[in-house]
Amino acid sequence: MRLFTNQKKLFPLFPILDWGSRYNRANFMGDLTAAVIVTIMLIPQSLAYALLAGLPAEVGLYASILPLVAYAVFGTSRVLAVGPVAVVSLMTASALAPLGLESLPAYIAAAAVLALISGAILLAMGALRLGVVANFLSHPVIAGFIAASGLLIAASQLKHILGVSVHGHTLPEILSGLVHHLPEMSFATLLIGTLALGFLVWVRKGMAQTLQNKLGLEPNLAKTIARVGPIFAVIGTTVLAWAFNLPAFGVAVVGTVPTGLPPFGIPMLDWELIPALVGPAVLISVIGYVESVSVAQTLASKRKQRIDPNQELIALGASNVSSALSGGYPVTGGFARSVVNFDAGAETPAAGAFTAIGLLVAAMFLTPMLFFLPKATLAATIIVAVLSLVDLSILKRAWDYSKADFAAVSATILLTLGAGVEVGVASGVGLSLLLYVYKTSRPHVAEVGLVPGGQHFRNIKRHSVIVEPSLVTLRIDESLYFANARRMEDLVLARAHQNTGELRHVILMCSAVNEIDLSALESLEAINQRLKDLGIQLHLSEVKGPVMDRLKRSHFLEELTGRVFLSQYNAFKELRQNDDVAEHVA
Amino acid sequence: MRLFTNQKKLFPLFPILDWGSRYNRANFMGDLTAAVIVTIMLIPQSLAYALLAGLPAEVGLYASILPLVAYAVFGTSRVLAVGPVAVVSLMTASALAPLGLESLPAYIAAAAVLALISGAILLAMGALRLGVVANFLSHPVIAGFIAASGLLIAASQLKHILGVSVHGHTLPEILSGLVHHLPEMSFATLLIGTLALGFLVWVRKGMAQTLQNKLGLEPNLAKTIARVGPIFAVIGTTVLAWAFNLPAFGVAVVGTVPTGLPPFGIPMLDWELIPALVGPAVLISVIGYVESVSVAQTLASKRKQRIDPNQELIALGASNVSSALSGGYPVTGGFARSVVNFDAGAETPAAGAFTAIGLLVAAMFLTPMLFFLPKATLAATIIVAVLSLVDLSILKRAWDYSKADFAAVSATILLTLGAGVEVGVASGVGLSLLLYVYKTSRPHVAEVGLVPGGQHFRNIKRHSVIVEPSLVTLRIDESLYFANARRMEDLVLARAHQNTGELRHVILMCSAVNEIDLSALESLEAINQRLKDLGIQLHLSEVKGPVMDRLKRSHFLEELTGRVFLSQYNAFKELRQNDDVAEHVA
Repeated sequence: MRLFTNQKKLFPLFPILDWGSRYNRANFMGDLTAAVIVTIMLIPQSLAYALLAGLPAEVGLYASILPLVAYAVFGTSRVLAVGPVAVVSLMTASALAPLGLESLPAYIAAAAVLALISGAILLAMGALRLGVVANFLSHPVIAGFIAASGLLIAASQLKHILGVSVHGHTLPEILSGLVHHLPEMSFATLLIGTLALGFLVWVRKGMAQTLQNKLGLEPNLAKTIARVGPIFAVIGTTVLAWAFNLPAFGVAVVGTVPTGLPPFGIPMLDWELIPALVGPAVLISVIGYVESVSVAQTLASKRKQRIDPNQELIALGASNVSSALSGGYPVTGGFARSVVNFDAGAETPAAGAFTAIGLLVAAMFLTPMLFFLPKATLAATIIVAVLSLVDLSILKRAWDYSKADFAAVSATILLTLGAGVEVGVASGVGLSLLLYVYKTSRPHVAEVGLVPGGQHFRNIKRHSVIVEPSLVTLRIDESLYFANARRMEDLVLARAHQNTGELRHVILMCSAVNEIDLSALESLEAINQRLKDLGIQLHLSEVKGPVMDRLKRSHFLEELTGRVFLSQYNAFKELRQNDDVAEHVA
Repeated sequence: MRLFTNQKKLFPLFPILDWGSRYNRANFMGDLTAAVIVTIMLIPQSLAYALLAGLPAEVGLYASILPLVAYAVFGTSRVLAVGPVAVVSLMTASALAPLGLESLPAYIAAAAVLALISGAILLAMGALRLGVVANFLSHPVIAGFIAASGLLIAASQLKHILGVSVHGHTLPEILSGLVHHLPEMSFATLLIGTLALGFLVWVRKGMAQTLQNKLGLEPNLAKTIARVGPIFAVIGTTVLAWAFNLPAFGVAVVGTVPTGLPPFGIPMLDWELIPALVGPAVLISVIGYVESVSVAQTLASKRKQRIDPNQELIALGASNVSSALSGGYPVTGGFARSVVNFDAGAETPAAGAFTAIGLLVAAMFLTPMLFFLPKATLAATIIVAVLSLVDLSILKRAWDYSKADFAAVSATILLTLGAGVEVGVASGVGLSLLLYVYKTSRPHVAEVGLVPGGQHFRNIKRHSVIVEPSLVTLRIDESLYFANARRMEDLVLARAHQNTGELRHVILMCSAVNEIDLSALESLEAINQRLKDLGIQLHLSEVKGPVMDRLKRSHFLEELTGRVFLSQYNAFKELRQNDDVAEHVA
């Protein structure tokens, strides 16, 4: 039974036609306010994440314009804000590094191609309605991966605060690089970086409260100002760098940023590099999608709205393709900016389109002002943003609840830190799938007996129950498939060998068997044959409808020496009464 | 409950001490007879398989000596015959080809190193008791892989029958190579090859019958002669090639084969090649192990004996290491030779040791006689042997029974033929795991009601049952884990939204829920919270012992708005009577 009813929509591919037709002045005011706040917040963030991806600052701006428009057209979340995000930027850097591209234009083109491939993958997944793939990432693995990525990103930004040059994509590489280059540290950079870091921590932790208490601002205004707080760090340190000519003292600044429209067109790249980008693009697509959908779902449920996971694939795919075609790099829905958009009152995806206009204006007119913006300030912005992602409490939760979950999450964290984001997330996913298969390959099998005074059967080891020496009932607590078929054969036959003397009937109670695949069918046939050789009949009970439908397509039911009973109680009652029942019930 | 009882043995690591201490004259005679027959059968086979692996013929002999002794010491099957086999030889060729080794000694050394790594992997798996890993290969995938490998091997040997030179490891490569080189065909070779092929087919299909009917031989003797029949093809075509000096007519012969003991010692190899060999070695180990264990298990069960899957890993590991140290290449237990060994009356692994002596004698004294042995004869031996492996009926069986099994087996066959053995088997295993996870990610959920006159609950869509408007019971037919947690959330909430008016209770019937992992726990918490917002209580029924134990370690049972009932009938009865039950049962 499929309980999930599809909501009928007139224009499923273009949600904009749905909300757009009912757009009104109230919507417009809410969207505009939100857009102004998000724009101010996004300017430093998009510059900073471009830096994290190893790209020039303006690429971050470009990636925050057209993708927002594309999402506004195709997206089903009312408030999701798309653009460069921390984890995807780190994954971009990690994907491009092994290519060994010498020239900056080639690196920029490769980043755009990565967005293009990633967009194509998302569009294809959307067309195939593969939104369900996101479910293959377990919550603990995602939590562990995000926490470890946050740590890795924070560590990678320390070099900008210290003013040294460090390369590396794993925690040991980064830390040893920092220690090694520490003597080359720039004190002016450290000063600016520490100032910015301190200010940003205060913005996040105490600014709203201080504005309320000291200046008597109303809470909402204070909160809004705190949210755009990072722009003050940007302005303040830029002015400082300009006034004291800090570049002369070794402070790295953003420098010349081209003014004007983003460069439109298909990115040019060496075709030979594409195969190397496909693997990372798959990971970026899936991780970006999972991150984006969980943000969208969380916010939608707060307003009792729903999102369509498959349409989200289309929307994110379109966003990435448009990013690639306008000088950007891989993007996805971001947590912080979407929450800000939501809280600031965005009512429709038009807020995203307005934000895009704001960033377009920034790209066209404000970039000359970014010349003196210290890279240390952008690094501080990133560090403060990502440290809020680092929540290692999942480790304790997993440890308490299940060692398998703990193994998956700790492997994800350790491998992300020690071997990089791609290895980390791929191993986490692979390990959690393997652990699941491993668990189901060693199923729990209980010998059960009748609970007195009812029709209920329970484990003979846990309950005092009625048993019959001539029959053994084994309840199999798992679907039967290739990974446990052989083991099941061993278990049943070992039990049958324990008392061949009296034993006449073996009943497999199948209430928890949700599937029997071809390998397991072969094992059942083998069990049936071997028990027959021992003069024992094999019976099944409580076989579910779908499993029975499938068994009827094979010859097993004809070969079965015993019967198939609707309920375990019937089986017990009848076989106890009549020890020579042999007709088939097919 | 673990029903499988370990058989206590005095010397688990050295089964030889067990059977060796009770060895008697009757055993000796049975073993000796079997050894003579198997030796005669193995001489052409081991030469031919070496050829298939791209190795000089004598390497096949070397790989059939020490490994048999090692298996006799460590193995738990009484009749398994270890040595070079078709599929593993093909995989060896496929593993070594990409290395691009120019010199033959380097190629031979690489083959030995492959056996060494493979042996080390098997020993490590044995030490870790990972025999269970073999279960991750589904029966249909193995069947498909073996059939496709057989086709591939047969195709690859056609070049020897035609006397042309063709390279390639996939069916399209081999076939296009054959077509391309057809004009260079050697007619003398084709003649010899066709003669040998025709004779060998007759040996397999009609020889025993003819010997009985025409010569009046007794059936057993006729069968035995038919089994060693290939040696007559070897002798006959060798004599022909010598008498007519066929090499002068373009017939390729084995040529000079060194006489003497196998070369002992650690194989020398460029260390840089080792990483490239590890992946193929893993596949060779696992495939070889699965093939060997299934042969051993089949034969053991015929004599009501048992084998120990973990000790078999040790035995095959030791066989491969000893093959590597004595000039051989990867080996495993072979189907045909083990059956012959079994039928010829082998009673203990000593038969294998005697066979080793026979082959040692062959290597020391008979090799000069192999000079004129045509390669076409060896190719014919292989073709006839492997075509019996090609059984594509698994395709029909899988199609009839389950489309998922069919997808896995057809992908395995197509990819093995089209992209080579390694890609084929790896994709088959990966795909069958993914399909299993995919199936469990879309669980069957049934809304159930009480079957009148009993305590049994069944699907409301399939049976006429009693339902209550104030309560909905959903039977979840799958373990709850990350791949289906989110979907479960959607299903339950969608059902709850269908009639908020009357609905007071949602019961999740967990008789088929064998596990709840941390991701699913979070989804249950979300369901509980969302239903609470709608004024609906969430209850669980028929939660199994191990699942309940785990839930008690979390805070879920404290947060649960409803109760946990031992049986679904209790839940139905109590909630129907008293609509305001709210105390917790933790």
